[in-house]
Amino acid sequence: MPHIQLPERLPGIRGLMAFRPETAHPLNLLVDELLFSENNPLSRGERELIATYVSAENDCFFCQTIHGAIASQYLGDADWSLVRQVKENPETAPISEKLKALLRIAGSVQKGGKHVTTGQAEAARTLGATDHEIHDTVLIAAAFCMFNRYVDGLATWAPDDQEMYRQRAVLVCENGYSAVNPTLVFSTPS
Amino acid sequence: MPHIQLPERLPGIRGLMAFRPETAHPLNLLVDELLFSENNPLSRGERELIATYVSAENDCFFCQTIHGAIASQYLGDADWSLVRQVKENPETAPISEKLKALLRIAGSVQKGGKHVTTGQAEAARTLGATDHEIHDTVLIAAAFCMFNRYVDGLATWAPDDQEMYRQRAVLVCENGYSAVNPTLVFSTPS
Repeated sequence: MPHIQLPERLPGIRGLMAFRPETAHPLNLLVDELLFSENNPLSRGERELIATYVSAENDCFFCQTIHGAIASQYLGDADWSLVRQVKENPETAPISEKLKALLRIAGSVQKGGKHVTTGQAEAARTLGATDHEIHDTVLIAAAFCMFNRYVDGLATWAPDDQEMYRQRAVLVCENGYSAVNPTLVFSTPS
Repeated sequence: MPHIQLPERLPGIRGLMAFRPETAHPLNLLVDELLFSENNPLSRGERELIATYVSAENDCFFCQTIHGAIASQYLGDADWSLVRQVKENPETAPISEKLKALLRIAGSVQKGGKHVTTGQAEAARTLGATDHEIHDTVLIAAAFCMFNRYVDGLATWAPDDQEMYRQRAVLVCENGYSAVNPTLVFSTPS
């Protein structure tokens, strides 16, 4: 049960956003810029994989499932097997060497900012990563250290049914985060 | 040296915000709503103490020093002794029992969302904390787990001179975060 009284039938961060729209607004703008904006050298699928990986490392069921579903939707990963491999071990997953280097940086950020090394940044750069990509990898990873703690720190509810995450993923991929009404989908029949 | 090429002479998050204004915008809106907005049952000083405490737990020199300076400015803590006591041990610091209970929640969030217990939320509520206050405590703590990782994960520069933090604190207390130009103050002579 959540630690505070939240609107019913809205899972994860959705209930929190309905509870406190004043903070929901900048949070939605932030995730839209980081994960949905086209002004980015990383594909939307790659950015969602970074968010998913960090959320899995933080053991946040809601965030790793919804962002994994969104990553799969972008990447044509119908059975979620690619996402599963990235969560289990990015080093052996069928992704680019550059993305592996960025996921190593994201993994360090998850542990704490000072865990990121000059060597990790140089390795990513050698594999073609730009400063924009390294910056956004660090900020996406850091932002999900916030979102994961927000969602679990207030003990929000998350559905088990994968189909609900798939439906939500389709909406987000088509419209972005800010445009999607938090009360849509995920509402269970009353 | 920072892991990416940042504008010179802008410390901590200020250089990052100048590097990537598209993400700076929602980050400033978020911190303004959480720490500066008057629509809040917690005082600005109390909210800054939560941000400072979490930043100290995350060992982020820049964030704990600037937010500590801002908290001290609000609270009339001229020699920063109250902030120092809160960072060292909130349980023995001269603050309200309610704020101690909220800082216990913030300390759990810093470790990970699942560390927050029902007992911690109930204890805060017994001492008078509202759902709004518990929500904002969790989100402030979570947000500083992001900001601290962002600042240290890219190895930004931070000045040692306390006077620079004091000057910046005065500006923020008077104008809020969004209104303060990131290039003001902290610029060392060229």
